Amino acid sequence: MRMYDLIMKKRDGGVLTKEEIDFIISSYTKDYIPDYQMSALAMAIYFRGMTPEETANLTMAMAYSGDVMDLSAIKGIKVDKHSTGGVADTTTLVLAPMVAACGAPVAKMSGRGLGHTGGTIDKLESIPGMRVELSEEEFIDNVNKYGIAVIGQTKNLTPADKKLYALRDVTATVDSIPLIASSIMSKKIAAGADGIVLDVKVGRGAFMKDLESAKALAKLMVDIGNSVGRKTVAHVTNMDYPLGLAIGNALEIVEAVQVLKGHGSKDLLEVCMLLGSDMLQIAGVAKDDKEARAKLKEALDSGKALQKFKEFIKAQGGDERVVDDLSLLPQAKYIRPWIADRDVYIKDLMALDLGLVAMKLGAGREKKEDKIDLAVGIMLGGKVGDIVRKGEPIATIYANDEGKAEWALNEIKKYILLSDEPVERPTLIFE
Amino acid sequence: MRMYDLIMKKRDGGVLTKEEIDFIISSYTKDYIPDYQMSALAMAIYFRGMTPEETANLTMAMAYSGDVMDLSAIKGIKVDKHSTGGVADTTTLVLAPMVAACGAPVAKMSGRGLGHTGGTIDKLESIPGMRVELSEEEFIDNVNKYGIAVIGQTKNLTPADKKLYALRDVTATVDSIPLIASSIMSKKIAAGADGIVLDVKVGRGAFMKDLESAKALAKLMVDIGNSVGRKTVAHVTNMDYPLGLAIGNALEIVEAVQVLKGHGSKDLLEVCMLLGSDMLQIAGVAKDDKEARAKLKEALDSGKALQKFKEFIKAQGGDERVVDDLSLLPQAKYIRPWIADRDVYIKDLMALDLGLVAMKLGAGREKKEDKIDLAVGIMLGGKVGDIVRKGEPIATIYANDEGKAEWALNEIKKYILLSDEPVERPTLIFE
Repeated sequence: MRMYDLIMKKRDGGVLTKEEIDFIISSYTKDYIPDYQMSALAMAIYFRGMTPEETANLTMAMAYSGDVMDLSAIKGIKVDKHSTGGVADTTTLVLAPMVAACGAPVAKMSGRGLGHTGGTIDKLESIPGMRVELSEEEFIDNVNKYGIAVIGQTKNLTPADKKLYALRDVTATVDSIPLIASSIMSKKIAAGADGIVLDVKVGRGAFMKDLESAKALAKLMVDIGNSVGRKTVAHVTNMDYPLGLAIGNALEIVEAVQVLKGHGSKDLLEVCMLLGSDMLQIAGVAKDDKEARAKLKEALDSGKALQKFKEFIKAQGGDERVVDDLSLLPQAKYIRPWIADRDVYIKDLMALDLGLVAMKLGAGREKKEDKIDLAVGIMLGGKVGDIVRKGEPIATIYANDEGKAEWALNEIKKYILLSDEPVERPTLIFE
Repeated sequence: MRMYDLIMKKRDGGVLTKEEIDFIISSYTKDYIPDYQMSALAMAIYFRGMTPEETANLTMAMAYSGDVMDLSAIKGIKVDKHSTGGVADTTTLVLAPMVAACGAPVAKMSGRGLGHTGGTIDKLESIPGMRVELSEEEFIDNVNKYGIAVIGQTKNLTPADKKLYALRDVTATVDSIPLIASSIMSKKIAAGADGIVLDVKVGRGAFMKDLESAKALAKLMVDIGNSVGRKTVAHVTNMDYPLGLAIGNALEIVEAVQVLKGHGSKDLLEVCMLLGSDMLQIAGVAKDDKEARAKLKEALDSGKALQKFKEFIKAQGGDERVVDDLSLLPQAKYIRPWIADRDVYIKDLMALDLGLVAMKLGAGREKKEDKIDLAVGIMLGGKVGDIVRKGEPIATIYANDEGKAEWALNEIKKYILLSDEPVERPTLIFE
């Protein structure tokens, strides 16, 4: 088998066999295939696409290109959740304790933020003492003991995906639905999930900009998952606007705690209920959506979910008192509210631009190597359609540099549009 | 300017500006742009194509990526000829002395053979003593003194094209008409031509397999040449079948001498008259096709063209007696004719396959580094439509290895098809 022939086959619209895809991925992982051939293939795939079968084969080849987590020592059905990335999306931090409190094991590996999107691991690190790197043994023990553990990626999972993704990132071949789907699904499969719940974000703040592509990606991932024996469901949700109110690491911990306490962004809670219901059903903890939602609501109302969050923090070395005293989280030096001078409705919140302002304040990374500032970010005063009363903040900047605080305060006025007339609330969940 | 953005622009169907193309080519030549980005761009160009203006800009950027020949010290209009490569195509060796004998200066750089196609420089080296590497001064002096010089490429011409071609060759991005056109034209322009006559081969033995693509390539090259101030004409000729009768280096010298002596393949002569007429007209030596053809015929009939060939050989250190005594050329040890057992018509000659048999006999190179055997090859007994009388050779194998000779003799029987009924002669010149 020669890579040249396989590039030509795909270039001419052919379908690569399982053996051919295995050859490509194993040779590329071992550096036997040079980057210049792989990028030519990626561009040919960009134009020609891949069949669902090719995509499933690519997914499995990448999933097994390195270490694969063995979670068989954890009792119960392990359901993982993945979001394609957005702004003010702290779903995992709310969802994980809710689901764990209902009795479904949560054994999750999360990522760090890149660009305008945040990452769960960074957010967790804003809790004093919190360890996000556990040994495999401790990880499994914690899940068995507390029903929950969330860690960063430690072992050498999906090296083929890492290498290919880095290459696609510099050769304008990221925006290919089969390549995106196989990248996401290979990581979830290598992380040991029995079932997968996907939240595909669409809109200005997401990687997928149009609904049609997002639906195609969601469908393809569900097909891949189910075809390789992982029960998979997907939802397409709106990322034209930030999901919650907080953009920034410690700020998103604050918001997660608020939601777990029963007050916080309704949109964020709605998405958590949606995804949580699927997780409980796949885990076999609830038989239908109605029962699942009832269990999730009970976990919130009774305080069990909040209690689970505390347990989780304590189990991973964190200071669980932050839940009751949010001032223990990293605090920004400069807090600049944008105060409403009259009663106004929020007409638009441009997710991508607000995410980028937060990134430039230090909440995110432009490049992988960048350091981030856990305390900074933006807290919104409401969502699209909400009214902000005179004297209340439309949004508040948290910064550790006075110049940046002033800059951000001016900047967000371009991306938060107001109206004196009532504004309709946008659709949150598309499918 | 970032290469990433330019790949994306082309990927999305955009048109690259002159500045963008200059940036790409100059950065790539200096190794500032990695191969993996260039191959992704080449694949995007494969799918999206380039406008004639983009192709002309790419041509000029590559032409000026290294040294450019300055032929201004040569009197007259320098017209170069280029063939896209075929089998049994020894046009240059016949055409150059014919045209020079008519008074148009021939200052030509030629290449070596690769794959199933031969190269003029290899063929010339089969003449004892012949030097194909002259200093620039000697090259120009020879053209001024004798009207003719043919050398291999010595200076650092079109390094960008060399690098890009080598990359395309391993990433399945060779078959792109704008990339082929700019590669050819950049070399001709860097070689200092004032005018260019192109012979675009089409068919089984050529790189272009279908007439439509060949016409498109020819038209594009003519447009490029004329748009950058080089008077350019092109013809599309048939390479479903070998052009002449000889395949192999010394054998093609034999055939060239035969044609210059007035007996030899009619097809080869016809193509030489066609291209020669254009060269004389562009050089201003003849005002129209009729006058040009009359001059060319006179040069042949009077023996002036043959005399010019001798002068040319002597001027470059070669033994000009080969013209009168072909046995001075390298001789093969094993000569194996395939004798007709009855009167038969030649029905088909599969150019590519016959070229590959000659290559495997040692007449050509599989890889650039391979050594070739100048004596070996195949001499055909006739062209498609010709009759071969009982007892005459249908074809003859020339080899320096007895086993290879027997192998080739069996092999060519698959690629030379015979008929007892008369066979129509195929079209030679399409446009």
